[in-house]
Amino acid sequence: AIKEFLNHQNISDVADLVYEFPDYESSIIAGMSVHRAASVFKILEITTQKSIIQDLPPNTVASLLNELPADDRTDFLEELPSNAVRELIKLLDPQERRVTLSLLGYPENSIGRLMTPDYVYVYPDNTIEEVFATIRKYGKDSETINVIYVINKKGELLDDLRIHEFILNPPEKKVSELMDDRFIALHPEDDQETVSEVFKMNNRVALPVVSGSNKLLGIVTIDDILWVAEEEFTEDMQKMGGTAALEEPYIEIPLFRLYKKRIIWLIILFFGELITISAMQQFQDEIAKVVILATFIPLIISSGGNSGSQASTLIIQAMALGEVTIADWWRIMRREILSGFMLGITLCTLGVTIIYTWHLLSPQTFGLHYMSIGLTVGCSLLGIVMWGSLMGSMLPLLLKRLGADPAASSTPFVATLVDVTGLIIYFSVAYLFLSGSLL
Amino acid sequence: AIKEFLNHQNISDVADLVYEFPDYESSIIAGMSVHRAASVFKILEITTQKSIIQDLPPNTVASLLNELPADDRTDFLEELPSNAVRELIKLLDPQERRVTLSLLGYPENSIGRLMTPDYVYVYPDNTIEEVFATIRKYGKDSETINVIYVINKKGELLDDLRIHEFILNPPEKKVSELMDDRFIALHPEDDQETVSEVFKMNNRVALPVVSGSNKLLGIVTIDDILWVAEEEFTEDMQKMGGTAALEEPYIEIPLFRLYKKRIIWLIILFFGELITISAMQQFQDEIAKVVILATFIPLIISSGGNSGSQASTLIIQAMALGEVTIADWWRIMRREILSGFMLGITLCTLGVTIIYTWHLLSPQTFGLHYMSIGLTVGCSLLGIVMWGSLMGSMLPLLLKRLGADPAASSTPFVATLVDVTGLIIYFSVAYLFLSGSLL
Ligand SMILES: [Mg+2]
Ligand SMILES: [Mg+2]
Ligand SMILES: [Mg+2]
Ligand SMILES: [Mg+2]
Ligand SMILES: [Mg+2]
Ligand SMILES: [Mg+2]
Ligand SMILES: [Mg+2]
Ligand SMILES: [Mg+2]
Ligand SMILES: [Mg+2]
Ligand SMILES: [Mg+2]
Ligand SMILES: [Mg+2]
Ligand SMILES: [Mg+2]
Ligand SMILES: [Mg+2]
Repeated sequence: AIKEFLNHQNISDVADLVYEFPDYESSIIAGMSVHRAASVFKILEITTQKSIIQDLPPNTVASLLNELPADDRTDFLEELPSNAVRELIKLLDPQERRVTLSLLGYPENSIGRLMTPDYVYVYPDNTIEEVFATIRKYGKDSETINVIYVINKKGELLDDLRIHEFILNPPEKKVSELMDDRFIALHPEDDQETVSEVFKMNNRVALPVVSGSNKLLGIVTIDDILWVAEEEFTEDMQKMGGTAALEEPYIEIPLFRLYKKRIIWLIILFFGELITISAMQQFQDEIAKVVILATFIPLIISSGGNSGSQASTLIIQAMALGEVTIADWWRIMRREILSGFMLGITLCTLGVTIIYTWHLLSPQTFGLHYMSIGLTVGCSLLGIVMWGSLMGSMLPLLLKRLGADPAASSTPFVATLVDVTGLIIYFSVAYLFLSGSLL
Repeated sequence: AIKEFLNHQNISDVADLVYEFPDYESSIIAGMSVHRAASVFKILEITTQKSIIQDLPPNTVASLLNELPADDRTDFLEELPSNAVRELIKLLDPQERRVTLSLLGYPENSIGRLMTPDYVYVYPDNTIEEVFATIRKYGKDSETINVIYVINKKGELLDDLRIHEFILNPPEKKVSELMDDRFIALHPEDDQETVSEVFKMNNRVALPVVSGSNKLLGIVTIDDILWVAEEEFTEDMQKMGGTAALEEPYIEIPLFRLYKKRIIWLIILFFGELITISAMQQFQDEIAKVVILATFIPLIISSGGNSGSQASTLIIQAMALGEVTIADWWRIMRREILSGFMLGITLCTLGVTIIYTWHLLSPQTFGLHYMSIGLTVGCSLLGIVMWGSLMGSMLPLLLKRLGADPAASSTPFVATLVDVTGLIIYFSVAYLFLSGSLL
């Protein structure tokens, strides 16, 4: 009865059940037909997948793993320690084992890891009738039949055709008559980061993966691309927020691992920020003379940090979407100098106005030299906001140029950089406006 | 010859050509068959789309717009000012016009706006042979034939079936024999933000959209979901970086609009940061007495800001993926207090060690009371990092609770909040450790 019930639910509903009753997770999976169990298993979180595999008896694990589509199996195995992988691979049928080992041979986060070898292929001299016979024979085990691949006897890809081409044409027509000899193919070594863009621009639900010599190796289907896109965005966002990519759900990652992912960057940023101590010490005499100067430090450096965060976020995001590349650096720099100027002038005006108004309301706060203090704050804001925008926009490009990930901690990194340089700008401006009067 | 050439390129390659030769963009579109022109047009950036429409003669615009799939037409029109929309809608055939007006009637960023009414539907008592006849008749104009919809005479959705079900079964079988009466349907008023998750969890390349009374209104196809997912992620990331969502490519947005999207948050954060001036003034006497105290301000408040950014990024991202909800606040709070403690203790130890080592190397820097200063800095770091983690994790939940977007400027906002409160923590700790000696 339970089996009956489970087999009649949507897979997403069964997944919800699994999350709701973690004590029964392996019983739920074991209680379904193996085909449906595999469909549910592949959409579960890795932590849940792991604990289910640990709980199930070996023969159930074996049939589940053999049933799992090759790409989803790779996706699961790549998250496990290598000795566990070795044990699990032993459970696979020889054919599935060969496939899995070859997929795991591609680099992590490469397109090869997303591939499945389960597709339907035909030859140019097949008739549409023969194509349907092929689909009936092999389509059941195929990941998709929405796109059919045309190859030659050497296994080289010639074209890909959508299923509707076959349905909308008469059965005696030849495949070669439908072909336009154009196709978009992926390469297994490429980074998965690029694949979402290719799918977006080429209205296809599956794309072929070919070797250097154009041999058809497998296909990648669009449903997996949604997961990849999310993974890549999550990675970028976490990196920009100043952590290493978690690679597992926040709520499930063990506390110590969470700590490690976060402390690395906190320490690096801490060391960067140590320079502010030296910078502040250079100006200690000035502060001692004009204590009010210290009052504005948080306001001024944070404004620089904020404009820097804006700039770096915008550039990293535009790079991730392919809207800008390193080659655009000069256009970007011009934009940011101009934007920085406009933003800086606004904050400058605001700052000066506020200080003067403040002075009118309580004249003792800034004292006799409130005008010079206002000017110092205003001009520092202008300089720091411009400087922040410039640094924030150029740093991601520089990181990219050096082969690093532009997203890596860039927002807090830019803020730290601007904290240090901002202090120097501030005290230099102060020196300019206040020497002779207060300094 | 040009037409011949263009018609034999992949649409993504034609799109690249358009971007490379902006002077010829409208000629390139006009130089293709209208069907292919529409396929290229729909993958172009909105700014390019606009300038092409402005350049083309009205009758070419008319045929292009009529050829454009309904969902892509909505996607384009919704970005235009309403008088332009009115003019363009006049160019549509009566049937397309009706469809477009009804799609534009759904709220912005709703699922209704992503819908297309071009799908193939059949009835339960149709045979598979009849289904194929239907597909041959209507499939050409359908957005996809990968999924076929089963409805009753009232137009209510009964099931959706993948094309392979029809191909793999004998032609005399009835549709009702293939049905499992289970389907996942979307609702047109729902936010598009949720749709990517539904696709991810339900291995389908298209999902039906139904009204409250289960009438089939249209379908949403997965290729559009990649665009939506990207749009939503971009929005989140830009908001987290402290700008309003740009809604157009960084490199193409007019400078003044870019300024407006950025200055709003800079001003809000500036006003927030003004409170630091008051906070600093409360402690002016302490700074005057112990100038060295000011030296550590940037280091200390930025450490709080960094741990706060980490926490808020992690929580916002986990909420966006549905991994945590407001109901998990207590679990999150516990995690963050613990993580904050571990992170804080690490930075505290590091800070104290550095100050003591510094003292050994140059004893005059911190003077006689270097131990108390070291303790002040260390304990402040511990307190501020814990406080930052806590604020950073709770603020997004609070924003969500209040119905606001948790992504909205949260990272710089948390930093500002921690700057203000961090100063208070720092000077209170200083008072504790230094009163009697230095203060
Ligand atoms: Mg998967
Ligand atoms: Mg993976
Ligand atoms: Mg082709
Ligand atoms: Mg797959
Ligand atoms: Mg990556
Ligand atoms: Mg990345
Ligand atoms: Mg579109
Ligand atoms: Mg839209
Ligand atoms: Mg069904
Ligand atoms: Mg579409
Ligand atoms: Mg949204
Ligand atoms: Mg959002
Ligand atoms: Mg800061």
